[in-house]
Amino acid sequence: MKTKKVAIIGASGYSGEELVKLLLHHPHAELVAVTSRQYAGQTLAQIFPKFASHPKSQSLRFSEPKAEVLAKQADVVFLALPHGVAAEYAVSLLNAGCVVIDLSADFRLKSAEIYKEFYAHDHPAPDLLKKSVYGLPEIYRDEIKKSLLIASPGCYPTSILLPTIPLLKAGLIKPTNIIADSLSGVSGAGRKAEIDYLFCECNESVRPYGVPKHRHLSEIEEQLTFAAGTKVVMQFTPHLIPVNRGILTTLYFEPAAKLTDEKISACYAKAYGEEPFVRLLEGKALPDTKNVAGTNVCEIAWRLDPRTGRLVVMSAEDNLVKGASGQAVQSMNLVCGWPETAGLI
Amino acid sequence: MKTKKVAIIGASGYSGEELVKLLLHHPHAELVAVTSRQYAGQTLAQIFPKFASHPKSQSLRFSEPKAEVLAKQADVVFLALPHGVAAEYAVSLLNAGCVVIDLSADFRLKSAEIYKEFYAHDHPAPDLLKKSVYGLPEIYRDEIKKSLLIASPGCYPTSILLPTIPLLKAGLIKPTNIIADSLSGVSGAGRKAEIDYLFCECNESVRPYGVPKHRHLSEIEEQLTFAAGTKVVMQFTPHLIPVNRGILTTLYFEPAAKLTDEKISACYAKAYGEEPFVRLLEGKALPDTKNVAGTNVCEIAWRLDPRTGRLVVMSAEDNLVKGASGQAVQSMNLVCGWPETAGLI
Amino acid sequence: MKTKKVAIIGASGYSGEELVKLLLHHPHAELVAVTSRQYAGQTLAQIFPKFASHPKSQSLRFSEPKAEVLAKQADVVFLALPHGVAAEYAVSLLNAGCVVIDLSADFRLKSAEIYKEFYAHDHPAPDLLKKSVYGLPEIYRDEIKKSLLIASPGCYPTSILLPTIPLLKAGLIKPTNIIADSLSGVSGAGRKAEIDYLFCECNESVRPYGVPKHRHLSEIEEQLTFAAGTKVVMQFTPHLIPVNRGILTTLYFEPAAKLTDEKISACYAKAYGEEPFVRLLEGKALPDTKNVAGTNVCEIAWRLDPRTGRLVVMSAEDNLVKGASGQAVQSMNLVCGWPETAGLI
Amino acid sequence: MKTKKVAIIGASGYSGEELVKLLLHHPHAELVAVTSRQYAGQTLAQIFPKFASHPKSQSLRFSEPKAEVLAKQADVVFLALPHGVAAEYAVSLLNAGCVVIDLSADFRLKSAEIYKEFYAHDHPAPDLLKKSVYGLPEIYRDEIKKSLLIASPGCYPTSILLPTIPLLKAGLIKPTNIIADSLSGVSGAGRKAEIDYLFCECNESVRPYGVPKHRHLSEIEEQLTFAAGTKVVMQFTPHLIPVNRGILTTLYFEPAAKLTDEKISACYAKAYGEEPFVRLLEGKALPDTKNVAGTNVCEIAWRLDPRTGRLVVMSAEDNLVKGASGQAVQSMNLVCGWPETAGLI
Repeated sequence: MKTKKVAIIGASGYSGEELVKLLLHHPHAELVAVTSRQYAGQTLAQIFPKFASHPKSQSLRFSEPKAEVLAKQADVVFLALPHGVAAEYAVSLLNAGCVVIDLSADFRLKSAEIYKEFYAHDHPAPDLLKKSVYGLPEIYRDEIKKSLLIASPGCYPTSILLPTIPLLKAGLIKPTNIIADSLSGVSGAGRKAEIDYLFCECNESVRPYGVPKHRHLSEIEEQLTFAAGTKVVMQFTPHLIPVNRGILTTLYFEPAAKLTDEKISACYAKAYGEEPFVRLLEGKALPDTKNVAGTNVCEIAWRLDPRTGRLVVMSAEDNLVKGASGQAVQSMNLVCGWPETAGLI
Repeated sequence: MKTKKVAIIGASGYSGEELVKLLLHHPHAELVAVTSRQYAGQTLAQIFPKFASHPKSQSLRFSEPKAEVLAKQADVVFLALPHGVAAEYAVSLLNAGCVVIDLSADFRLKSAEIYKEFYAHDHPAPDLLKKSVYGLPEIYRDEIKKSLLIASPGCYPTSILLPTIPLLKAGLIKPTNIIADSLSGVSGAGRKAEIDYLFCECNESVRPYGVPKHRHLSEIEEQLTFAAGTKVVMQFTPHLIPVNRGILTTLYFEPAAKLTDEKISACYAKAYGEEPFVRLLEGKALPDTKNVAGTNVCEIAWRLDPRTGRLVVMSAEDNLVKGASGQAVQSMNLVCGWPETAGLI
Repeated sequence: MKTKKVAIIGASGYSGEELVKLLLHHPHAELVAVTSRQYAGQTLAQIFPKFASHPKSQSLRFSEPKAEVLAKQADVVFLALPHGVAAEYAVSLLNAGCVVIDLSADFRLKSAEIYKEFYAHDHPAPDLLKKSVYGLPEIYRDEIKKSLLIASPGCYPTSILLPTIPLLKAGLIKPTNIIADSLSGVSGAGRKAEIDYLFCECNESVRPYGVPKHRHLSEIEEQLTFAAGTKVVMQFTPHLIPVNRGILTTLYFEPAAKLTDEKISACYAKAYGEEPFVRLLEGKALPDTKNVAGTNVCEIAWRLDPRTGRLVVMSAEDNLVKGASGQAVQSMNLVCGWPETAGLI
Repeated sequence: MKTKKVAIIGASGYSGEELVKLLLHHPHAELVAVTSRQYAGQTLAQIFPKFASHPKSQSLRFSEPKAEVLAKQADVVFLALPHGVAAEYAVSLLNAGCVVIDLSADFRLKSAEIYKEFYAHDHPAPDLLKKSVYGLPEIYRDEIKKSLLIASPGCYPTSILLPTIPLLKAGLIKPTNIIADSLSGVSGAGRKAEIDYLFCECNESVRPYGVPKHRHLSEIEEQLTFAAGTKVVMQFTPHLIPVNRGILTTLYFEPAAKLTDEKISACYAKAYGEEPFVRLLEGKALPDTKNVAGTNVCEIAWRLDPRTGRLVVMSAEDNLVKGASGQAVQSMNLVCGWPETAGLI
């Protein structure tokens, strides 16, 4: 299988670090460049001792993030950058013929207006919104294969969209009464030197935040609207919990008609029965973040409540893998024509 | 102020241990007996080294739990026992003239049928259900003062009832569409030698459990039904998170009529403005379990979501204090005629 | 008992916060001022929601740290400031007649040369070194009672000095071969926005640091030299472990002569048998930081190893209480003539 | 490369689970049997949901541990059993021609007397002690390649022996004054339902245990004696810290002669410069368990202390990988003639 050269712009955050790990061990991708303003000139091994046993960590040095240089080095470029900044790199890299896989929010929305509403600045490259594909392979596999600009989904959105889209598409739940209650590990906040994310501020602490209008609502609602064929406005409450990795989402749905376990089971089996990275739990099992940590798997379980009539669906993922870097690699595999599971577990 | 003698039956679990801590430092209660089948004969200091600097820990020894003996020693007896077992002790102790404060579920419900539905055995003393008072001081203060049998509420129920009852009583929310999503520290599972609660099974793990019909629903729904004046059936999803202490509950309500921040604020201020152990958060602050750990306080904050029309209310408490032993001591203070805040912070 | 007015300069760090907690509940001290450049103008309740249920938290506002203003307000002033900065305040406050209890390293050493060697700048007020007392009450109780300038010991030093000084004074161990291996919770690093202390960098991590010449060695060795009557140079390795609070120190000593359990037991009993805040463990018990968290107690246990001939001594303390703010309050109690245990558990 | 069939006896504990993980993804080993009395009849996926995405997890069922059956199924058998029990299986499996890799302590010692002293029962198969090889590949690589019975080292011993043996062999340190202070994650205690290892007993806790004569001393001292050529008796203090995985060991040595950084560096470079799983840290870096978690790497750093004259060496490993199952797989790779790093990172 033909190897391709890949680069990561912004490789020093948690998502960037996870990308480095995945790409160092990928059977078909060759990591040729990692950038970091802060660490430019230093080797991977110096900044991430955990990778020091990999031979490439001794030779690969962080460089300044210059699009024109990277475009000559790499076929595929991952952007692990803040929103707003990512878009600028994307334009240059696409023009130079690279495939761009963006982990920021810059190309996840189709609407520049909604982008401005949620991100508080004009979209830096609105023309590209038409060209980008939302990088959720279980939903957009065919589009991803043909795309040059893949907008890899957010961590919370992945944990909400995977369990919800099949139910909406099948008309099993009402689009008007959706609640998502999510619990995220602290790596979701990024590697930022802020008091709020110090060990002593997070350990022995549990807290909601961003209530009631977290930015991720924009892409969640847009995707759910596509799936439902009607405008979806929903409730979403993220919480910070003291684990490094993992998102656990509990979803509350109102059935659109009389539901049975069989109908739900059949709906999910049809949607995900053959998916390598969606695990439908059976019997008494419920999702647990420790069962997906370090993997690209999203666990899903559901319970129909005969007392309330509601459908409760629960999902678990590793926010840095299926919620970020693993999913981005999954998209890379698709766009490069490699086995979708290459380099992922 | 007149001192009273108090005993704890079942003092070796987490609630029992917290009761010991509170009672050793209580200004008016004198801890005269602690029982534990397992540790009978050993001093408090031997089993709980953390109390070893308190002089009483050297002299007070765990005894076998014999109701007739304890009834002679103590005026007030706390039961920190499993449901079913607690009721038997309560009968004997009440007959002997003791005040009984039960931390189990045995006397929290008014209906023996619902007890059987949720606890899977006949109620051991159904006649006493009429006599017991639900020990939530903010709601039943006057009744607690006059009661001889106080059923101290469960940890999840406290975190749900305190934020919900005032809204239901004021008719601000619909009683038909209530969802409670709760996150609990591991001490809520008790000091039980089970694989599921080992450090390595809980650390770096987040998981729902008891979905969709956790036992605590019985007392939550009964109390909400009393508050609403109409039958309440609701959704409740508990989750286990890797902290020692704390419950964070997020509640989703449908307004009964047009709501404003002012109306909600006024409703809570009327209900809890003078309460020493309910903290209504203002401004941007949201509840955080680390701000209530070790205290008898329940924090409450709310957000009206203009996009969905829902009211989101969040609460935080220490499951072992306001959710168990602190609240039981608060009830003791009331029934003994002491200041309600004595020995509590 | 006569109340005194106390102030805290630098009340927004972890030690400052713990001082606030202790002083809000102290029976004889009245907290009249807290300073913080960052939070000046805001109330205690706004910055520390956990204190919001205390009435004073609503009225007491952080002020700018101005020595002349504070000197008029307070009889006793705690300095919870970085070294170098603390000394400047101390001079002004002492001149104005205040008692100063300094939690920084500025007045812990008798030698300005050693200060410069370890802290890399000239001592700001070398004349005061003669006047200050090292605030370890178990060793310097009488001196503390009469002092106007108390240098409260560091967290590591307390955990090392308490177990070691009696053995050295009694001549039971050699002063030439002392090793201290210490494990500290992350609050010991202070409330600083640095990447190294983020939750995800500390959780699931254990690491040594500051090897082999941590600053605390200066005061440890000076105090051990006083106790031994001969120059002590020792080994000390601090480690960072993922807990909020607690220091566990394991000490390795070479006996000076034939040792027996009885001799060691007698030595410690004589030194600490009546001490309210030193807990000598007996039988099989070993120190555990969870048994001292939130208290001013230092636990000590020892084992003579017949195989190696060494004496192994282990101690546990809460780094923020006995290792910092609790011990400072203990000194305040002494200098103010209050019961030594007032406001402490 | 020729594939071999492997089995795991005792696959439900933490070491067994880690072996399952490594062997499911091993390029040359085919996992054909896993045993567990408790889970016999259930699939891997049922007991370990985290492996459910691997196709073999659906077909492979836990069986009863019967040596005669397993001997027909597998070429190589791992024993992840308690000491005493392991030896019985080893005898039968060796007689049936299997290669046995034992993770228990049963064949680590050459002396049956020392075994009895430390494990409190007669050795079940003393004749085999001559035939077994201590499975530390960096020291016994050639012997392991030719052995049919490999005694995989304990977790603490690995973290102590790797840094110490080269120094002793080179005569750089005295064999008479060695101290090892070790910190272990809770998985080291095994998946046992005991109160001491509950989340709430370990979280926010740090504690020594097994002082001063932990069982692992027997194999550590035997191996160090071999390396030194003279009897080694040493100090070892294990501590339990609240992480899932990882051992951090700090070693204190007395130089045998004048030491320099160059000499130590040369000694380690000679011993481990080409080793794939030993990482010698340079510059300011110190070991951190988070940099080795999930890998078979042991990090080593050292500091000569000019003040005390001592040499301080620190190591970090994942107790379940290099300290147990990864190292056992490394030995399997050697004995099977595969690349030593196959299936390991």
